[in-house]
Amino acid sequence: MNITLTSTRMRLIRHETTALALVQQSLGAVGRHTGLNAIAYLAADDALRAAAAADTVAPTGPLHGLPVTVKDLYNTDGMPTRGGTHAALPDLGGEATAVTRLKRAGAIVIAKTNLHEIASGISGENAWTGDVCNPIDPARQAGGSSGGSAVAVATGMGLASLGSDTAGSARVPAAFCGIVGYKPSFGLIPLDGALPLCWSCDHAGPLARSVADVHLMTEVLADRALPLRPAAQWQPARLGVPRRFLDGWLGAVTRVAFERLLSRLRERGVALVDVDAPSMHNALAVYAPLRSAESAFIHRAALEREPEHFLPQTLDRLREGQTVSAQAYFECQRQRAHMRVEIAAALAGVDALVLPTAPLPAPVRGSTTVELERGPSEHRAAFVRLTLPFSFTGFPALSVPFDRAEGLPLGLQIVGRQNDDARVLEIGACIEALLAA
Amino acid sequence: MNITLTSTRMRLIRHETTALALVQQSLGAVGRHTGLNAIAYLAADDALRAAAAADTVAPTGPLHGLPVTVKDLYNTDGMPTRGGTHAALPDLGGEATAVTRLKRAGAIVIAKTNLHEIASGISGENAWTGDVCNPIDPARQAGGSSGGSAVAVATGMGLASLGSDTAGSARVPAAFCGIVGYKPSFGLIPLDGALPLCWSCDHAGPLARSVADVHLMTEVLADRALPLRPAAQWQPARLGVPRRFLDGWLGAVTRVAFERLLSRLRERGVALVDVDAPSMHNALAVYAPLRSAESAFIHRAALEREPEHFLPQTLDRLREGQTVSAQAYFECQRQRAHMRVEIAAALAGVDALVLPTAPLPAPVRGSTTVELERGPSEHRAAFVRLTLPFSFTGFPALSVPFDRAEGLPLGLQIVGRQNDDARVLEIGACIEALLAA
Repeated sequence: MNITLTSTRMRLIRHETTALALVQQSLGAVGRHTGLNAIAYLAADDALRAAAAADTVAPTGPLHGLPVTVKDLYNTDGMPTRGGTHAALPDLGGEATAVTRLKRAGAIVIAKTNLHEIASGISGENAWTGDVCNPIDPARQAGGSSGGSAVAVATGMGLASLGSDTAGSARVPAAFCGIVGYKPSFGLIPLDGALPLCWSCDHAGPLARSVADVHLMTEVLADRALPLRPAAQWQPARLGVPRRFLDGWLGAVTRVAFERLLSRLRERGVALVDVDAPSMHNALAVYAPLRSAESAFIHRAALEREPEHFLPQTLDRLREGQTVSAQAYFECQRQRAHMRVEIAAALAGVDALVLPTAPLPAPVRGSTTVELERGPSEHRAAFVRLTLPFSFTGFPALSVPFDRAEGLPLGLQIVGRQNDDARVLEIGACIEALLAA
Repeated sequence: MNITLTSTRMRLIRHETTALALVQQSLGAVGRHTGLNAIAYLAADDALRAAAAADTVAPTGPLHGLPVTVKDLYNTDGMPTRGGTHAALPDLGGEATAVTRLKRAGAIVIAKTNLHEIASGISGENAWTGDVCNPIDPARQAGGSSGGSAVAVATGMGLASLGSDTAGSARVPAAFCGIVGYKPSFGLIPLDGALPLCWSCDHAGPLARSVADVHLMTEVLADRALPLRPAAQWQPARLGVPRRFLDGWLGAVTRVAFERLLSRLRERGVALVDVDAPSMHNALAVYAPLRSAESAFIHRAALEREPEHFLPQTLDRLREGQTVSAQAYFECQRQRAHMRVEIAAALAGVDALVLPTAPLPAPVRGSTTVELERGPSEHRAAFVRLTLPFSFTGFPALSVPFDRAEGLPLGLQIVGRQNDDARVLEIGACIEALLAA
C-alpha cells in the first residue's frame, strides 16, 4: 500500500525506477490476478512501447511514465469500448477528454477495466465478463460499477484508475477493496466520449491508493489546480454526522468501527455535530425512475434491436425506464433539486459530513440481501443508500479506508460543499494522516 | 413613434419634461385605449407618487422617471400576478429579478399587461380578460402572448415593456403592432419570479419603440453592458436568408415586401447568402410535446384541482402534456440540440440571418386559418413557424418594423449567434437607420 502514484512519481524523477519497469510490474500483477476478472482489455505491447519511449525523454506532465487503467466505458484510442455488455453501444464520438488528459499528463494506459454491465449496478457482478472479485477474498464482491478499476489499483495493475460514479460506483468499490475513491463535484471532470448511465448524475471518478494520489489524478482530469494545505497545518474543526440517516442502516461491525473513529476525532478536538437532510432518506425511490428513464433513452437502439444482449437485471431496469412519464421524470428532478438545497443547508455549519461509504464490508458474491441493524435489507437498497444522495445532487464525496472488520476494509465518506473539491480532499488527507499516526 | 425611451430620457435630463408629466401622459393613453384590453392591473396612484418623488431627486439609474409596463406573469411587489388565467398559479417566490432591475434603474412600473392565457398562444386572444386588440385596427389580433405589452408600447402606455418569448411571444406582437421586440440569448435575462411556460425555452423579452430603446432595456434587464458601434460606422456585410425554410410559408404581401427589402440591402452592398438548417422545418412538431409536458408539470396543481379554470384550448394542450413519456421528451430535447448545431452552422458564414417575423400582418381576431403561398394554413403553425426555431434553440432574435401591407406593419427578424446579443442589436439599429433614410 505504500507504493503510491505520488511516491512512484518521485522515484521516477530521481531515476530510482523506470517507466518500463513500472509497466512490467503492472503487467506482472495483471498476470498474477487474472482470476479476479478486473481487466476488460490489455494493451501490453503498446504500454511497453510507450514506457520505453517515456524513458528516453525528460518528464513533461505530472503523470509522466506512470501506468494507469481506465474503466471500460471511456473511449480510448486504440482500444475497444464495450461497457461490460454484449449490446451495441451508442456512438460516443472520439476519445474521452478525460482519457486524453491522462495521456497528455504522461500517463500510460495499460488496460481497460471491467464493470457492472453498462455501469448499472453496485456489486460488480457480471455474467458476460465474469464477476469482478475482491482481491482480499475472491469469494466476495469487489463492488461496482467500477469494480475492475478498484481491483486494478488494489493489486498494482497500474497505480491509479479512471472510474466513474453515478450512485456510488467509484466510492463503493474503493471501500470494498481498501483504496481511495473520489466522486468530484458534478461537472468538474468532462464526460464526453464516455458511455453515460444517467446524464443527470454521472461523474468521472478517480481511484488510487492515497488521497494525495486521487488529488493528483483529479487535478489532471479536471485540468485545474486544486490547492491543498498540508495536513500538518490544519484539521477540520466541525464535522457533521447524519445520525438519523444512518439509524438502522449500518451493519453491526461498521457501526462499531465508525463510532470508534468518531471517538478518535473527538479526542483530536474535532466537534461532531448531528445533521440531517430528511429528503436523503428517500433518495433511491426518487433516483431509480429518473436513472432508468435516462438509461433507457441512452440504450434505446440496442433495446429495440437486441434486448437479449442485455443481462436480465439490466434489461428489467431499462424496460422500467421506458414506462416513466415525463411528469414523473420532472417530479424526480424537482425532488432532487429540493434534496440539493437540504444537503447544502446541512453542510452550511460544518467543514464536511462524515459517514461510512457502505453499511458493511464487501458481501459474498451472489448476495441478494444483507443484515443491517434494521434487519435484512435488499442488496442495492443497502449499498447505494450512503453514497447515492451525494452523486444524485452533485456534492463532492471522497471514500478513504478507515478501519477493517472481519479482515475486510471499511470506507469513510467525506462530503463537502459544491465545487469545494480542494477542501474535501484536504479533510480526507487530514483524516488519512490521523489514521496512519 | 418618435417619442422613444431614449429620446424621452434626454428630455428628462434636460428638464424639458418631468416624470410626473410622463406618467400622466401614460395614464392618459391607458384611459383612451381601454377597449384594446391591454392592461391587466393599473397602479395609477403608486405610479404618480413614484413620479413625483423621482422629480425631486437627481437621476441615478438609466431609466430614472421613465414609465414602463410589465407583462402579467412577472411577480411585481404591490401588484397581483394572474398570468391571464382564472387558475391558481404555482408559487413563484418574490419579485422577479428582472422587475427589480427595472425599478433599480429608476423605471416606474405603471401597469401589468394582458397576455394569452398562461402565455400559451400566439394570437393574444383571451376569453377571461377579453382579447388584446391591435391598436391599428381593433378587429385584428395584437399577437401573443405579450400582446398587452406590445399594445401598451404602441399606444404610449409607458415607453417600453417587459414581455417574454418562448416561441415568438415578444417578436410576433411587436411585428403585429409595429414596434421593436427582442428575444435575447437564452439565459441572458433571469426569469426567477416569472411564471414559466416551458423552462427549456422561456426567455424574457423587452418591447419598445426603437432598437436603441430595446438595447437600453436589455442592458438594464441583463445587468450587463452590450456595447454597440454606431450604425453610421458599420453595416452588415453578409446576411443569410433561409429561402428554403420560407418557401411556401409566407403570405403574398409579406413576400413582396421582404423581396423589396432584400433588393434595398443588396443595393447598399450587403451580400445575401442562401442558408438552411433542415431541422428548423420541423420545429413545431418537436417543440409541441416538450412544451406541453413542461407546462403540464408547471400547472399540475391547478390541473388536478380546478381544470375548469383553464380555457378549453389551454386545457387541451396541458392534457396532451400529461401523456408525454420521458422517452418522447428526451427525443425532443435531442432533436432540439441537433437543431441548435444546424442553426449555428448556418450562422457561421454570415453576420446574421434575416427573415420576416410573421408570414402575414396581423390577421383578424378569431382567425383559425390564414392563406399562405402554400395554401390555407392553421393559425398557430403559420405564426410560430418563423420565430420558434430561434427561441427553441436560444439564439438571439430581434424583430424590427420594416414595411407595411394593407396598412398594417410587418416585422423583420434578425437572428444572431449565441451570446452575441450586441451584434444582433447593432445590425438591427443599422437596418432601422437604413429604412428611416
